[in-house]
Amino acid sequence: VWSNVEYLDLSVSEGFVTLGFARVDTDRDRRQGAPEAILAAGKTPDEVAAIARTLLESGASSVLATRCDPAHHEAMVSVSAATQWHERARCAWIPVNIPVVAGTITIVSAGTSDGNVVHEARIRSELLGTIVTVHQDCGVAGLHRLLPVIPDLETADCVIVVAGMDAALVSVVGGLTPAPVIAVPTSTGYGTAFGGVTALLSMLNSCAAGVAVVNIDDGFSAGTIAARIARAAAGVTR
Amino acid sequence: VWSNVEYLDLSVSEGFVTLGFARVDTDRDRRQGAPEAILAAGKTPDEVAAIARTLLESGASSVLATRCDPAHHEAMVSVSAATQWHERARCAWIPVNIPVVAGTITIVSAGTSDGNVVHEARIRSELLGTIVTVHQDCGVAGLHRLLPVIPDLETADCVIVVAGMDAALVSVVGGLTPAPVIAVPTSTGYGTAFGGVTALLSMLNSCAAGVAVVNIDDGFSAGTIAARIARAAAGVTR
Amino acid sequence: VWSNVEYLDLSVSEGFVTLGFARVDTDRDRRQGAPEAILAAGKTPDEVAAIARTLLESGASSVLATRCDPAHHEAMVSVSAATQWHERARCAWIPVNIPVVAGTITIVSAGTSDGNVVHEARIRSELLGTIVTVHQDCGVAGLHRLLPVIPDLETADCVIVVAGMDAALVSVVGGLTPAPVIAVPTSTGYGTAFGGVTALLSMLNSCAAGVAVVNIDDGFSAGTIAARIARAAAGVTR
Amino acid sequence: VWSNVEYLDLSVSEGFVTLGFARVDTDRDRRQGAPEAILAAGKTPDEVAAIARTLLESGASSVLATRCDPAHHEAMVSVSAATQWHERARCAWIPVNIPVVAGTITIVSAGTSDGNVVHEARIRSELLGTIVTVHQDCGVAGLHRLLPVIPDLETADCVIVVAGMDAALVSVVGGLTPAPVIAVPTSTGYGTAFGGVTALLSMLNSCAAGVAVVNIDDGFSAGTIAARIARAAAGVTR
Amino acid sequence: VWSNVEYLDLSVSEGFVTLGFARVDTDRDRRQGAPEAILAAGKTPDEVAAIARTLLESGASSVLATRCDPAHHEAMVSVSAATQWHERARCAWIPVNIPVVAGTITIVSAGTSDGNVVHEARIRSELLGTIVTVHQDCGVAGLHRLLPVIPDLETADCVIVVAGMDAALVSVVGGLTPAPVIAVPTSTGYGTAFGGVTALLSMLNSCAAGVAVVNIDDGFSAGTIAARIARAAAGVTR
Amino acid sequence: VWSNVEYLDLSVSEGFVTLGFARVDTDRDRRQGAPEAILAAGKTPDEVAAIARTLLESGASSVLATRCDPAHHEAMVSVSAATQWHERARCAWIPVNIPVVAGTITIVSAGTSDGNVVHEARIRSELLGTIVTVHQDCGVAGLHRLLPVIPDLETADCVIVVAGMDAALVSVVGGLTPAPVIAVPTSTGYGTAFGGVTALLSMLNSCAAGVAVVNIDDGFSAGTIAARIARAAAGVTR
Amino acid sequence: VWSNVEYLDLSVSEGFVTLGFARVDTDRDRRQGAPEAILAAGKTPDEVAAIARTLLESGASSVLATRCDPAHHEAMVSVSAATQWHERARCAWIPVNIPVVAGTITIVSAGTSDGNVVHEARIRSELLGTIVTVHQDCGVAGLHRLLPVIPDLETADCVIVVAGMDAALVSVVGGLTPAPVIAVPTSTGYGTAFGGVTALLSMLNSCAAGVAVVNIDDGFSAGTIAARIARAAAGVTR
Amino acid sequence: VWSNVEYLDLSVSEGFVTLGFARVDTDRDRRQGAPEAILAAGKTPDEVAAIARTLLESGASSVLATRCDPAHHEAMVSVSAATQWHERARCAWIPVNIPVVAGTITIVSAGTSDGNVVHEARIRSELLGTIVTVHQDCGVAGLHRLLPVIPDLETADCVIVVAGMDAALVSVVGGLTPAPVIAVPTSTGYGTAFGGVTALLSMLNSCAAGVAVVNIDDGFSAGTIAARIARAAAGVTR
Repeated sequence: VWSNVEYLDLSVSEGFVTLGFARVDTDRDRRQGAPEAILAAGKTPDEVAAIARTLLESGASSVLATRCDPAHHEAMVSVSAATQWHERARCAWIPVNIPVVAGTITIVSAGTSDGNVVHEARIRSELLGTIVTVHQDCGVAGLHRLLPVIPDLETADCVIVVAGMDAALVSVVGGLTPAPVIAVPTSTGYGTAFGGVTALLSMLNSCAAGVAVVNIDDGFSAGTIAARIARAAAGVTR
Repeated sequence: VWSNVEYLDLSVSEGFVTLGFARVDTDRDRRQGAPEAILAAGKTPDEVAAIARTLLESGASSVLATRCDPAHHEAMVSVSAATQWHERARCAWIPVNIPVVAGTITIVSAGTSDGNVVHEARIRSELLGTIVTVHQDCGVAGLHRLLPVIPDLETADCVIVVAGMDAALVSVVGGLTPAPVIAVPTSTGYGTAFGGVTALLSMLNSCAAGVAVVNIDDGFSAGTIAARIARAAAGVTR
Repeated sequence: VWSNVEYLDLSVSEGFVTLGFARVDTDRDRRQGAPEAILAAGKTPDEVAAIARTLLESGASSVLATRCDPAHHEAMVSVSAATQWHERARCAWIPVNIPVVAGTITIVSAGTSDGNVVHEARIRSELLGTIVTVHQDCGVAGLHRLLPVIPDLETADCVIVVAGMDAALVSVVGGLTPAPVIAVPTSTGYGTAFGGVTALLSMLNSCAAGVAVVNIDDGFSAGTIAARIARAAAGVTR
Repeated sequence: VWSNVEYLDLSVSEGFVTLGFARVDTDRDRRQGAPEAILAAGKTPDEVAAIARTLLESGASSVLATRCDPAHHEAMVSVSAATQWHERARCAWIPVNIPVVAGTITIVSAGTSDGNVVHEARIRSELLGTIVTVHQDCGVAGLHRLLPVIPDLETADCVIVVAGMDAALVSVVGGLTPAPVIAVPTSTGYGTAFGGVTALLSMLNSCAAGVAVVNIDDGFSAGTIAARIARAAAGVTR
Repeated sequence: VWSNVEYLDLSVSEGFVTLGFARVDTDRDRRQGAPEAILAAGKTPDEVAAIARTLLESGASSVLATRCDPAHHEAMVSVSAATQWHERARCAWIPVNIPVVAGTITIVSAGTSDGNVVHEARIRSELLGTIVTVHQDCGVAGLHRLLPVIPDLETADCVIVVAGMDAALVSVVGGLTPAPVIAVPTSTGYGTAFGGVTALLSMLNSCAAGVAVVNIDDGFSAGTIAARIARAAAGVTR
Repeated sequence: VWSNVEYLDLSVSEGFVTLGFARVDTDRDRRQGAPEAILAAGKTPDEVAAIARTLLESGASSVLATRCDPAHHEAMVSVSAATQWHERARCAWIPVNIPVVAGTITIVSAGTSDGNVVHEARIRSELLGTIVTVHQDCGVAGLHRLLPVIPDLETADCVIVVAGMDAALVSVVGGLTPAPVIAVPTSTGYGTAFGGVTALLSMLNSCAAGVAVVNIDDGFSAGTIAARIARAAAGVTR
Repeated sequence: VWSNVEYLDLSVSEGFVTLGFARVDTDRDRRQGAPEAILAAGKTPDEVAAIARTLLESGASSVLATRCDPAHHEAMVSVSAATQWHERARCAWIPVNIPVVAGTITIVSAGTSDGNVVHEARIRSELLGTIVTVHQDCGVAGLHRLLPVIPDLETADCVIVVAGMDAALVSVVGGLTPAPVIAVPTSTGYGTAFGGVTALLSMLNSCAAGVAVVNIDDGFSAGTIAARIARAAAGVTR
Repeated sequence: VWSNVEYLDLSVSEGFVTLGFARVDTDRDRRQGAPEAILAAGKTPDEVAAIARTLLESGASSVLATRCDPAHHEAMVSVSAATQWHERARCAWIPVNIPVVAGTITIVSAGTSDGNVVHEARIRSELLGTIVTVHQDCGVAGLHRLLPVIPDLETADCVIVVAGMDAALVSVVGGLTPAPVIAVPTSTGYGTAFGGVTALLSMLNSCAAGVAVVNIDDGFSAGTIAARIARAAAGVTR
């Protein structure tokens, strides 16, 4: 019979679990070395719990819910008493079978208010099996505050820079480190900070080469790609 | 006497009912095969009730109020005990004289959080007399999740794709189906998702031909045009 | 052996032809009822010619190049002496095996300057096997100019509205016709017309239901989806 | 002695009253035929009361406070028991010495949700001494709803069109009336309505000549300029 | 037989002339007191000539083509030897039956570079039968330059302010004149002048009441509405 | 050993205090003549208190927290009973060792609603040791209200203009004063005021030379640079 | 007789020269210590020559035309053989009576491509009587390149930072110098540099206090305000 | 003596060469493992030649000039006869001492028109010592075209995705590969493609984790960071 997709193998629809409101990709750990995570915002607590339970049962190496409100947190606890919680990062997670640690990541942030993003990135990176060092509030208005960070910038396998406002920190760090730099703009600031858009644009136009950028406040994506980079640099893949 | 519009027939002002704050288009069902609906947001419950009552009395095939808060819902119930309600879609409706069902629509969504828009589109389509199949959370980050959907994409008279964030699902679906594709961007996402603008732009630039787009979160319009397309393809008009 | 895509059938890479700079999708006609077309802008004349020749040899029902400059046109002529040309639409095409005509489309435009988009849509629609009627310069500032169009709006299987500036024509037409309306914003206008963005936004917010929108100046996509809708309404699919 | 402004007369600083946080322009009625009004939003109730009292004492023809919350309303009442209130328009006003009525204004709105702006414009126009006729919910998706309005459009000295979303009503009205048209975009709508920006852009690009536009939701400015136009057309100035 | 527009009078399609690429609204002079004009940009010289000839033959009071390049100008001359031309304004026009002059308009501009818009507005206003006074380069950085203009601001029936950059002139003028103010933003300036967007936004937010705004560089619309206002104020309508 | 920064002196990491979530720049007073301040928004009260205490102990000339909510204010009081508070400015500050006063600053604002920014700028300027004169609500819609301000504009060492909406005041002031002008856009206004963006753009395009602009609502930065300018003009540096 | 401006002195219209297309502010030197300059872009060479001649004859301390094309340059030469020219800055100027030099300005730029703006600022500053030092291409991607500049940053009376792309240089410089910093964004860069908008936004959000910003590529305004600041700091005013 | 930067080592200004208009960072190869490159756009051919010569003489591993016009190319040839040239990529480069090759990069592009960016990225990556495989025109509208690429996606150390328009390819690839993905938006497309902004936004919102993005059309930055990632994964650093 005719089929639009005769050159695609239709007989296998395995690799995910259908919950009606969701199709959980239970294959991602195997396929890409990192399990699917749950963006709690926009989902009901029940939905978060059902997805978490499905991931847990399918053997995910960890279950991470980001952008949780307290009800989402409770839903995660109801799935597993092993659930951990970071208030500022608004992350709830169930560590299951964390990979053997390999690869080092240095996270540098520009200001105190970037802390929520710093920790979301850190948690994700650690769940994927990396060693993370954090230096907060190193904004270039007081350049000397960055000096003690430099040794870590030289030895890290990957550097994450978290900054809002003018994000000038990215180019300064990007000019000092030989490692790949993942930049995360944050919604810190007011007026023409435009909820992180200014930081994003500044980062995309960094005069330092070797910088790539993720979405505003997206510590999760930064942590994911940084872990891939760092682990590979340490000689480990998946 | 002089008249700017002497070549327009002024003698007939029939086809609507004036309520002071509203002129209800009671002729739309006859003229276009679909009754006027009520955008509840921005209207008082009393206004919603009055418009609903007018539509009901004028013989509308159905009365649908979208973007309702609970008070709007109650107002609809006060008009007719037959009022139905979908929590997530925030739709209240009174089915009256639904057309004989004809034409098939497949709705595919990218993520769980798009559910409100999926169901608004589904409800409107069904009230206009079509058969609707829904597949949620088929985002292309796990492409295998889309495979079971393909048979439906091949046979539908019209396909609706609901997606936020990067809306990449539209082009993948648009390259597989021979049916017209109506794309609905959603406000799902954060940061540079810009409340659905990114999804909208992505959809407008779909590398698949045969795609047209409606307003952000506008399941109502998608359902309306899809029903027209599907019913015509099934050989039924109005 | 391990494979990320073991549930996808890798053994078949048929359905396209690789030219190095391009992978021509020679399967699209069969899969979706409309052949791949060539966006000439951004391609060299040689590239356009090579892709056109590949499509021709693969049995495409027609070969259409859009946004051609004169050199692109010449390249098309070098491929086939049957090449046809529309100056204003900047389209060059080789009709090969046009489907039996079925389904009617009415194109209405707001102003004379929208002509290039009108004709791109018309050519594409006709190559896909539909009957197209064109009414130009029906802008609502002189509403009486639209009156003679109304009978066509009532009987068309699909209506395309092409408009720049405020695009008010869309809602007027959208409130009169029972057919699906595909709206094409054009870059006509100046100042806050913003190259078609204003028309696009206006169309997306049409107060008439049953309207869907394509990219600015994208007559090609409008013609493609309108043809699908019209042919299906006429009882023909592919 | 040297002075930067020696060619300006510094000796007179009359024509206003200084309250510290405000310099009330008590001369505006005399100078421009319309008293200063109070934008309550962003001011404390006490500030609103103090300014209102100053205007009252200086002999303003009326005292109007716009964008009031209930506390602002109470503050106005505390200044004068003659304070009037319109809930939807969020206007509080004290009529004092309204000019003899002259000149006719027709206000046409696209939808029920535009009511707050319609009434702000109406109140201001009436306080400046004009006759105002209001037609609400005449959106062009049901064009026949506009027909009964046409006689008023032909005879008005000035027409105000209030519309959100695509604001298509402006061009239709602008093509029918011989009067100047003042267009007010409203923040009605969602998604790409962008809080009234789409309506504003549409209006600025109206294909009808003779239209000028004010700020989004700015019924106050529309009422002010319309009253000037209408009164002058009726042969009265100030 | 059924008709969507049975309450509209279809029997009359008079009032315009169809040229295929254009439907010339030959009724506008009668209906609105100002003839249709020709936006030359985007039209071929032949199209401009054909439309001009049609307007001329239909008895338009004047024929005005705006945004002409030299070829458009020549096309106008080919239609009538009476064609006049203004280099900076890029306007070509054929005066035919200019109304008896009534009503005064004062045009004030901020800088020399706004001259093209000033003259487009002036020409249109004069063709509609008004008396126009022009004061150029009165920008508020040298406020004393505005002083000699004040008497004209006090007596004009309508004031047009033409300004780019920060458009601060609008609020200063708007606070001095009792007449309605039509503001025209221009694309003068660079960088964040954003081609006139900044001037437009500034004008829409004028702290002076009684100001309404037209599209960027749109001297034509300003001239049209100003003439309507001024003539009515002088007691003449159409 | 190899070091990326061998030409930078790594041995000194003095000049700041590390609190984990913050690195307080305790050297800024010495280095730049103005102490680091605390942007309270986005920080917890405990964090604000800890930073304030560190600044106090390090000998800062003053400790200023901006954008405080009541809890931030309480935290400041817990650090020092000498804490002062300005409700509208949302500023809490501890004066410690204010420099000898030198240099005069004139602050002019356009409207009453700009008061919060006016006072944030004033407080910062005064803490840095300058004499500040404030004139509020001098918007140019009533130009005579500005006249009494002119003598201060002529003698000030620096002028700060605070304005929202169209910010026309900047160019008028900028054309009258011989002093440097620091312009602060405010988020006052609605609709196309776009939260201060319009005022910002207007200011950047001021037709008066000698104007420079800071972020929207950023009284703090305006106060800082103005104090530097004024004190230097008075012959004092740091 | 009644007058809207009876409290303004209308009898004096001195202080400017009217050329029809321009009103040259011949008083600005006296009033503000800096002569009016000529923005050549948008003016004809004849207009530039006429304005230059007027300024020259009125005793301006210098005549500066910015954004000149070669024809503007020739026009300036025709006015005075003393005309000087800077190719990259596109400036032509006639030095007449330059003030005694006082005050030092340091200009630092991020890249070679910012040279045009650097020199426009330098020329204006020097014409107003200041000593200017220039350091080009000090972008922070190679932070060591900035080190030799630091002594100049410490002693300058005013610092101008010229930068495109991410403009990170501003915050680094702004954290090192005790002088006021005037930041000039440039249109250097591509893609999301958005013609200087990104640099502008970055500068407005500088994490260093004491920074104020001018329009994109606006070396002229930067030079003007910097000269005012520097001369005052050196104890000289006008 | 006092110094703002006493904790920075001022005595060393080595590591760069000053050319007046440029300070060439000759230390970057040593510090970061990749030499400074030359963005030719905005520089004169002479400037490009001088910088290239400086880099060559300082021992750079390669000299690469991007965004060259023909004159820039000639300037490079004048510096070294070994200069190589890629027409579409507009790159000229002098290979000097290319690192031993290590690490594999797969570049996948969506369309033929993305070729210039593909090759800029490839050239930079190869000059930094990596093995690059290129697959062009794999857009998801014909998903089967991507199938032959999958083996390369599984084994690459880093993947670069180059796409314009909707950039849907990024999420599809990002869901299949275990490698880090660097996404490059291109300015391919028209209308709402907005010169690459839509592709950029889509990429930043990719539903696949593990993706980071560079500036529009910035093949250079993508090549730089990808080479760092790939070489580290292959066990080589600098």
